[in-house]
Amino acid sequence: MAVYTEVGDEDLVAFVAHYDIGQALSAKGIAEGVENSNYLLTTTEGPFILTLYERRVKPADLPYFLGLMAHLSAAGIQCPVPVHDRDGAILRELSGRPAAIVTFLNGMWPRRATPDHCAALGSALAALHVAGMDFSDQRPNDLSIEAWRPLLAASADGADTVRAGLGVDLAAELDDLEAAWPGNLPVGNIHADLFPDNVFFQGQQLTGLIDFYFACTDMFAYDVAVCLNAWCFEPDGSFNITKARRLLNAYRKVRAFSDQELAALPILARGAAIRFLLTRLYDWLHTPDDAMVTKKDPLEYWEKLRFHRKVRGPADYGLK
Amino acid sequence: MAVYTEVGDEDLVAFVAHYDIGQALSAKGIAEGVENSNYLLTTTEGPFILTLYERRVKPADLPYFLGLMAHLSAAGIQCPVPVHDRDGAILRELSGRPAAIVTFLNGMWPRRATPDHCAALGSALAALHVAGMDFSDQRPNDLSIEAWRPLLAASADGADTVRAGLGVDLAAELDDLEAAWPGNLPVGNIHADLFPDNVFFQGQQLTGLIDFYFACTDMFAYDVAVCLNAWCFEPDGSFNITKARRLLNAYRKVRAFSDQELAALPILARGAAIRFLLTRLYDWLHTPDDAMVTKKDPLEYWEKLRFHRKVRGPADYGLK
Repeated sequence: MAVYTEVGDEDLVAFVAHYDIGQALSAKGIAEGVENSNYLLTTTEGPFILTLYERRVKPADLPYFLGLMAHLSAAGIQCPVPVHDRDGAILRELSGRPAAIVTFLNGMWPRRATPDHCAALGSALAALHVAGMDFSDQRPNDLSIEAWRPLLAASADGADTVRAGLGVDLAAELDDLEAAWPGNLPVGNIHADLFPDNVFFQGQQLTGLIDFYFACTDMFAYDVAVCLNAWCFEPDGSFNITKARRLLNAYRKVRAFSDQELAALPILARGAAIRFLLTRLYDWLHTPDDAMVTKKDPLEYWEKLRFHRKVRGPADYGLK
Repeated sequence: MAVYTEVGDEDLVAFVAHYDIGQALSAKGIAEGVENSNYLLTTTEGPFILTLYERRVKPADLPYFLGLMAHLSAAGIQCPVPVHDRDGAILRELSGRPAAIVTFLNGMWPRRATPDHCAALGSALAALHVAGMDFSDQRPNDLSIEAWRPLLAASADGADTVRAGLGVDLAAELDDLEAAWPGNLPVGNIHADLFPDNVFFQGQQLTGLIDFYFACTDMFAYDVAVCLNAWCFEPDGSFNITKARRLLNAYRKVRAFSDQELAALPILARGAAIRFLLTRLYDWLHTPDDAMVTKKDPLEYWEKLRFHRKVRGPADYGLK
């Protein structure tokens, strides 16, 4: 939860005047999102989201993120649409930060994901993958396997303070992943961070996918693996095979999932687990205690990783 | 900035169903306000504010706060109106906290208050005082002079770590204030915390007064003194006599300000300064570094207090 950059009332009014979205009526900093500062902006035309991009987001990547959102929305995906200013630009500057206005989506993210939610997610994820296939821009996944060894090195001194032996365990896991990481699976534009707080529902109806600021060009099946980890484990750490089956079957109805992708799912899920484990571990060790964010437990993902190590085939994910 | 209590999507939908305000479409935690958790709730009927009252607010005081807001709004004051549920109640429970829904006000608080803002504030403050005169309920000001000695005692060990000699200086100031505190000035229902972030404007037009959770029954002139401190000092610590004149003259046009009130203003302003100094000092010394709030500098108020000590008459506040 955070608003890192304060926006003055006069600056905001002047900023909004560059757009054809009516007059600014109010702007409330939103206590969600960890990477950027988000405001719920209300104008005479309705609600919008104003985002100021903070340090962790590379300005050079913003045209990719915003362009992908515009492309997906035009293809029918329920995601925020960047609003063009009167000169046609979708990126401006506000309070010294790159800033954009995107459309507001109704709905709330599910605090307790149900199997129905997981099925709706699977369909939406596959539709996103299909819709993104003809998006012309690309962005390498800078948090994929090439990044993990350096990330681990940056936390090497502290890993064992989180759990004795964690550093050695992670290095051994990276050895496995580097040896087995697939190189020939279908690739396209993926979300790469589709956690429950980035998916809005009204009841069981999915109403929006948000936060495309980790989107990148990588294996579709890796995106599925991220979702398996984020949606199909219970708070007690157990794997919910019903949720996984619903998610995967719904996905496969929209986009064919090849046998190679299915076979690679356990190793991709281990990779997806270590990706979030390593960034959480880094934040755990390097975020000052007085920072305005809640640090997340890296070890949650070690337990998920251990589950996928034991998977022997699609049946362990609920598939025939 | 804080949202202390998370509200689940299902709980929220069920909560909103008790009101006749349409169906919940979204709820975003607002990164403003220090005491309570606030959500910007959007329903099919428009925006509302949902507040969950946290530890620092006594549940027994809530009927006074909400009743005062309803009373003031009915009298034409631009402030949030508590929304009645289908049973007529304005206070319910949500996620284990007392909770209320109030109407949403357009506008933004001024980051740089101008003399025009101060004049509009003066009028609105006087109108609030007049409108509150026939509100039947009362609440003693539990952060007035009787509270300051115990508050100082609670910070005595740490005061000198903030500035050497601060503890002795504050004790001496309390001696002065206790000897000179007025006892015969007009009393009524006051806001008691009308800082710029609690006053909304669109341009120079005042559109709302919010956050009545320190409101109480105390001297009207004390409320004026709180505003003098909060609105009429520049970021460099200097007193802006133009802003004070505009504020006070606008106030006096709406509600007569007696000579006794005017004469008491320096001592009341010193008291208003020490009230915020002492609560900031307490928070400075007792808030854990990892809490989700930004601690405010108590010494800012020591400098304001020193200014009022030197005031020799109304001319020092810009009045004839």
